[in-house]
Amino acid sequence: MDLWVDLSARGNRTAAIYRALVQAIGDGRLRAGDRLPPMRALAADLGVSRTTVATAYERLTAEGYLAGRVGAGSFVTAAAATVPAPAGPAATDTAPGGDVAPAATAPIALRPKTSWDFLPDATSSRDGPLWADFRVGLPDPTLFPFDAWRRLISNELRLRSRSPGTYDEPAGDPALREAVAGHLGRSRSMRAMPDDILITNGTQQGLDLLARVLLEPGDVVALEDPGYDRARELFRSHGATVTAVPVDAEGIVVQRIPPQARLVFSTPSHQFPLGIPMSLQRRRELLQWAAERDAVIVEDDYDSEFRFAARPLEPLHALDRSGRVIYAGTFSKSLLPTLRMGYLVAPPSLVPALRAARQLADWHGVTALQSALAAFITEGLLAGHLRRASAVYRRRREAMLSGIDEHLGEWLEAVPSAAGLHLTARLRPGVSLRSADIVGPARAAGIGFEGLAAHFAGPATVDGLVLGYGTAQLDSIDGGLAGIARLVRRFASSP
Amino acid sequence: MDLWVDLSARGNRTAAIYRALVQAIGDGRLRAGDRLPPMRALAADLGVSRTTVATAYERLTAEGYLAGRVGAGSFVTAAAATVPAPAGPAATDTAPGGDVAPAATAPIALRPKTSWDFLPDATSSRDGPLWADFRVGLPDPTLFPFDAWRRLISNELRLRSRSPGTYDEPAGDPALREAVAGHLGRSRSMRAMPDDILITNGTQQGLDLLARVLLEPGDVVALEDPGYDRARELFRSHGATVTAVPVDAEGIVVQRIPPQARLVFSTPSHQFPLGIPMSLQRRRELLQWAAERDAVIVEDDYDSEFRFAARPLEPLHALDRSGRVIYAGTFSKSLLPTLRMGYLVAPPSLVPALRAARQLADWHGVTALQSALAAFITEGLLAGHLRRASAVYRRRREAMLSGIDEHLGEWLEAVPSAAGLHLTARLRPGVSLRSADIVGPARAAGIGFEGLAAHFAGPATVDGLVLGYGTAQLDSIDGGLAGIARLVRRFASSP
Repeated sequence: MDLWVDLSARGNRTAAIYRALVQAIGDGRLRAGDRLPPMRALAADLGVSRTTVATAYERLTAEGYLAGRVGAGSFVTAAAATVPAPAGPAATDTAPGGDVAPAATAPIALRPKTSWDFLPDATSSRDGPLWADFRVGLPDPTLFPFDAWRRLISNELRLRSRSPGTYDEPAGDPALREAVAGHLGRSRSMRAMPDDILITNGTQQGLDLLARVLLEPGDVVALEDPGYDRARELFRSHGATVTAVPVDAEGIVVQRIPPQARLVFSTPSHQFPLGIPMSLQRRRELLQWAAERDAVIVEDDYDSEFRFAARPLEPLHALDRSGRVIYAGTFSKSLLPTLRMGYLVAPPSLVPALRAARQLADWHGVTALQSALAAFITEGLLAGHLRRASAVYRRRREAMLSGIDEHLGEWLEAVPSAAGLHLTARLRPGVSLRSADIVGPARAAGIGFEGLAAHFAGPATVDGLVLGYGTAQLDSIDGGLAGIARLVRRFASSP
Repeated sequence: MDLWVDLSARGNRTAAIYRALVQAIGDGRLRAGDRLPPMRALAADLGVSRTTVATAYERLTAEGYLAGRVGAGSFVTAAAATVPAPAGPAATDTAPGGDVAPAATAPIALRPKTSWDFLPDATSSRDGPLWADFRVGLPDPTLFPFDAWRRLISNELRLRSRSPGTYDEPAGDPALREAVAGHLGRSRSMRAMPDDILITNGTQQGLDLLARVLLEPGDVVALEDPGYDRARELFRSHGATVTAVPVDAEGIVVQRIPPQARLVFSTPSHQFPLGIPMSLQRRRELLQWAAERDAVIVEDDYDSEFRFAARPLEPLHALDRSGRVIYAGTFSKSLLPTLRMGYLVAPPSLVPALRAARQLADWHGVTALQSALAAFITEGLLAGHLRRASAVYRRRREAMLSGIDEHLGEWLEAVPSAAGLHLTARLRPGVSLRSADIVGPARAAGIGFEGLAAHFAGPATVDGLVLGYGTAQLDSIDGGLAGIARLVRRFASSP
C-alpha cells in the first residue's frame, strides 16, 4: 500500500505518522488484516528514524488499531474499524507543544445551559495603553512591596518543603485567619474571631460560597442599583431572582427592598459605583428590616481600607447584633487583585456549611500564599503599605476632585465619598450626556474610565463618569480630565 | 455617673472602654443627653492614657452613640438608644489580635440550606503520625523540587512587579495553557490546543465549573461505584440526581448507566478506587453510548502520569471523535495538592461558558504561580520530576505488591492496575472481613490506609483495602503490611 504522510507541517513526526495511519484506517484505505509497511521501510520512505515509526506503531497497538505478529510485522486489527477515528485530516496536524496533533474542531456536541449567556469582559490588561488611567477598582501595583513579598513567599516555600503536603483546611490557613481577625479589629474595629473567618479567592468566591449555602433557585436577592454587576451575574447564575433596589443620598432605599428578599447585597462604606457612604440612620433601618424579615445582609467592604474622612463609619457588621450581616473583605484593592485573596466574616451558624462548600468548590486556597500573607500582616507590612498607599491615593484623589471641579464642573459634580479608589461625577441637573458616547472615544484617545449608566441593572436614573485613581499617575490627572472635558463639551447639551 | 470598666481581661483597653460604654448605653445606665466623664478624668480613674479614652470616645462618636460639644465634653445622643448594642458583656472582651472585643456568640439567625449536610473531613494533616503511611492520593512532597520552584516563583514575582496588576484571563495564563497542551501531547498523546484548556484550582474546581455550565437541577449524573465521593457530593450540591453505576473488571458497566444520564463521571486510566484500567472495548462502548444519548463524559485522569505498564492506554479523550469527552487533569498528584493546580480540556463549544463560570466563581487563579508552572514545564523540570518520581513510586509499588502477596495473600489479592499512586487489595472469595473494623485500629497503631467499602455510594459489593504508596517510605512498607496482616487475622473469617 502507499501511505501518504505529510511531514511538511511543523510538529512531531511520530504524531503525524500516527494520525496518518488512523486516518487511513478511518477512511478505509487500511482494512482489517492489512499488513503495515515494515518500520524500517516506512522510516526510509519518510526519511525519519526507525524509532519514530516504532513509537507510532506502538501507540496504535496500545490503542487497539494494530496487532503485531513476531517476525511478520504489524497488522490492522479487526477491531480497528470500530475505533472512532479522531477527526481532522492528518495534513493539518501541528501541535502547540510541537508534539502531537491538535484535534480538528469537533462537532458541537456539547452546549452549555442557556443561562450561560453571560460572557466575561476581555481582561483589562488587554486594553490599549492609557496615558490617563482612570480605570475603576484597581490599585497601583508599583506601590506593592514586591521584595518583601518575595522574601516571605520564599521563606514559606522553604518551610513547605518540610510539610506533609496533604490537602489543607478549607477555611484557610489558621495563621492568616488570626492575622485577618486582628487586622479587622485594628483597621475596622470589627469584633471577629479567627473561627468566624473563611479565606476565599477574592470577594467573588466569598459571594459564590454564600450563594451555594444560602440560596435556593428562585430565591429573591436584592442588589443596589447602580451596583456591582459581577455580584448580580453570580447570584443569577445560582438561579436567584435578582431585583434592583434604588440608592439615594443615604444609601440603599430600604423601603424598596422586596419583602420576600432572602439576601441583600450592599456596599455601605463606599457604595459601588456612586461612592457615597450609607448613613447611620439607613444602616439601622437596614439591620431592622433584615431582623424583621429574617434576611441576610452581605456587606461588601471592597475598598474602604483607604479612607479620607476624619471620622470613618464603622462597618455594618460592627452594628449588627443579630448575626445577620456577613462581611466580605478583599486584598484585591489593598494589595493586588492577582493575589486572589479575600475573606468572609460569617456567623458561626454558617461557617461549617461554608467550609463544606469551599471544599467542594476547590478544596482550599494556595497555602503557601496564605501563610506568606499572614506573615505580611503580622510583621506590620500591610499596615505600613496601607499607610503609604493611602497617602499617595489621597494626593491623587485631591487632584481628581479639583480637576473634576475645574475641567468638568460645568456639567458634572463629584458625588460625596469618604473612602476607596474611585470617584463618581454625576451630571448636574439639566445637563444631558450619555456617558456611553464618550467612554469609547476617550479610551481610543488613551483615557480610561467607566460610564455610570453602565452600572445600572434597570434603566439608569442618573448618568455620569466613574473615575478611578488607583492607577492614575498624579501628573496625568489634570490632563486626563481636561481631555475628558473636551469630549464632554462635544457630546453634552445643557439647557 | 460611675462607669464600671473591667480592664483585667487580656486585650485592647480602648476596646474595653468602648464596649463598656456601649453596654452602659444599651442597658440604660447612660441615657440620651447624659454627659460622659471628661477624658482626662476617666483616664485617671482607669489608669490608662488619655489617648486610649479619646480613641474610644471617637469611635462611639463616629458610630452615632456620642456627640461632642466644644468645651462641654461628650454627650450620649438621642439616637444612641436605638443603636443596636453589640451583644455580650464587656467583661469577656478579649480579641485574637489583642485589639477589639470579639462578638459574643450571636443568636443563630442564619441557617444554610438543608442540602448542606455534607461536612468536610478533618484534613489529612490533622491525622496522628503514621510510621506506615498508605494514605490514598497523596504524592511524596519530599520528591518535589522546591528549590527550582522557589527560583521560578521568585523570577515571576520580579516580573510581576512590572505588570499592570489588573485582573487576568479566567481561562488561565496563556503560557501555562500552551505548556499544558504540549505536556499532554508528550505524556498522554492528546491532541489539545491551548484554547481548549482551562486552568483550574485542581480537578475539584474543574468539576464544579462543568456542573455550573452543564447541569440543571434534577439532571441525572452517573458515577462509578465504587467511586470518588468528592465528585459525588459536588454534583449533588448542584442539585443533580447522582446515580451509582457498578464497575466490573473492564471498568464502568455501560449497560447499567441510566438512559437519561446527562453526564458520566469516569476514571478510565486508573479506576478510583479499584485501580483497574478501562478496557479498550469498554471505552468504545462508553463513547458509543454517549454519542447515542447525547451525553457528556468527564474523564478524570487524576494520577495516570505515573505509569508502570509497557503499553499505556491512551486517555478516553484521544479516542473521542464526537467532542463529548471532557478531560480533567491535575498537578495535585504529579506535583503537590497544595498548589491547587489542575485543568480541563474541553470542546470549543463549552469553553466560553466555562470561562464565564470561572470568572463568576473566583475570577482567575494566582497568576504568578501559573506562570511559574509554565516555566517549570517548558524548562523540562516537570518531565524530569515525573521521571524521578516514577522510579521511586515504581519501587514502592513493587514492594507493596510483594508485601500484599506475602503478608495478606491469604485473605486478599491485589487488583490489577497499571498506573497511579495506590493499589487496591480485594478480599478473596469466601473471606469475610469488614475493612471498617481494621482501619481505625490500624490508624491508632500508626498505619494509615482506607477501606474499599467506604468508597461505595450504594451497598458495597466487595470489600478490601485501598493502599497508597505515594507517601509510603520504602523501608516501612513491609512492616506496615505485616502490621495490617495481624489485624486482618484478628477480624477476618475464612470459610
